[in-house]
Amino acid sequence: MSLTTLSENRSHGGIQGVYDHTSDAVGTTMTFSVYVPPHEAGAKLPVLWYLSGLTCTHANVTEKGAYRRACAEHGIIFVAPDTSPRGDDVPDDEAYDFGKGAGFYVNALQEPWARNFRMRSYIEDELPALIAANFPADMARQGITGHSMGGHGALTIALRNQPRFKSVSAFAPIVSPLNCPWGEKALGGYIGPDKDKWREYDAVALIEDGARLPDLLVDQGTADNFLTEQLKTGLLALACKKAGIPATIRMQEGYDHSYYFIETFMEDHVKWHAGRLI
Amino acid sequence: MSLTTLSENRSHGGIQGVYDHTSDAVGTTMTFSVYVPPHEAGAKLPVLWYLSGLTCTHANVTEKGAYRRACAEHGIIFVAPDTSPRGDDVPDDEAYDFGKGAGFYVNALQEPWARNFRMRSYIEDELPALIAANFPADMARQGITGHSMGGHGALTIALRNQPRFKSVSAFAPIVSPLNCPWGEKALGGYIGPDKDKWREYDAVALIEDGARLPDLLVDQGTADNFLTEQLKTGLLALACKKAGIPATIRMQEGYDHSYYFIETFMEDHVKWHAGRLI
Repeated sequence: MSLTTLSENRSHGGIQGVYDHTSDAVGTTMTFSVYVPPHEAGAKLPVLWYLSGLTCTHANVTEKGAYRRACAEHGIIFVAPDTSPRGDDVPDDEAYDFGKGAGFYVNALQEPWARNFRMRSYIEDELPALIAANFPADMARQGITGHSMGGHGALTIALRNQPRFKSVSAFAPIVSPLNCPWGEKALGGYIGPDKDKWREYDAVALIEDGARLPDLLVDQGTADNFLTEQLKTGLLALACKKAGIPATIRMQEGYDHSYYFIETFMEDHVKWHAGRLI
Repeated sequence: MSLTTLSENRSHGGIQGVYDHTSDAVGTTMTFSVYVPPHEAGAKLPVLWYLSGLTCTHANVTEKGAYRRACAEHGIIFVAPDTSPRGDDVPDDEAYDFGKGAGFYVNALQEPWARNFRMRSYIEDELPALIAANFPADMARQGITGHSMGGHGALTIALRNQPRFKSVSAFAPIVSPLNCPWGEKALGGYIGPDKDKWREYDAVALIEDGARLPDLLVDQGTADNFLTEQLKTGLLALACKKAGIPATIRMQEGYDHSYYFIETFMEDHVKWHAGRLI
């Protein structure tokens, strides 16, 4: 498993890199970023995954996420994958919330999406192996977070893969694709009309069906335009309460859905993960 | 003096805004960003100016500069102007280092630049008045910093306007346009062949000619591709030494010219300014 270095820049004493590789899982070239903090030679560091939201690539959080200071302080590797397969040969849709940039972290079952739109396998299996082989990563200590669609990805991947992810958080996550227009469009298109098959891609349904997390941190802005119709944080709070999952769900007054919100609470999240990974 | 709000987002307890206005100084619409940290009603806060480098607008540092956390902590307003006049009616050049995006913080004397390329007057006079009129700014407490061409702008504006700027710093500044290709091209084009007229736009020459600063912080990466040919930090160090200006000039091992470098040391700079403004 080889990768190509696109750029490496020193930052906060470590190296912020951007790499690409040929992905078997999704059948295209995929770009991702990795921040490796300063560390002693030979050390193996915990890994924090960050899954991005609709329309994003690795670049949004890499440039705007303000995670490097905290990751350098705590000694955590930060990995930011892309949100979908890419390239001229990949099927797409005109909408911003379906097709490229909107992989929804599923393995698609419907055509023409089934060959390439396999972001679940990419994030759960292929990319972790690549990270383990090429970076000083201790894969026994992984945490996961994400924003919006990526918050959905983080929650569902963590719920399906316990105890692999020892720490879980999210920024303004889509908590139940079964119950919002973004989710209905994406899962209807990628997975098909059988909603029973959607449940493994729905954090609330996974909890209802018995999946558990050790605990959970969520920040959600009260001025987020998507809160009422798409994100529905309350459904997650209720599901966690019923299931006995200790969830710290913070409604942040006046914050919106942007990276100005994410950067404000990023250090809190890194610290949360550090407390569970170190 | 009125401005139009393009966006306002809550971040680190304050408001990151982007605004535009019609500039008399440069004769075009100009966009700038202002971060106002959380503060008590009626309070007047110190102002830190950040001047950007070649090809940049207000957006680069606003998105990538990682200054909000520190400005919120210290209670400092952060203002990021554009780097040149903009618009279809403004003369331009194909090069990245002349014309739009490359105003060099001068008042041009040569045609066709003389009407619009008046960034010196814009930054020194017009925009401060607009800030004073529209934000909770204490204009008796101003500091200035900048990157590359903007470091040149910060140094020269501070040197020409003492004691207005009580604190001065720079990231990888162009220290002597008289002695580098970027400067020769820009000042030759905007000011003309008489190099005596360049000296008010050259930090080293201003110091040689008697201008002084109370003290100075500069960070410069050793892996910066522009260090040897364009930036020439050593000329500034020598001029400060000869003039008795206390200059903290830090060569940062392995850092390049990018915002990954800037973000690493931004909090140090905000703290430096806070120590002199608060």
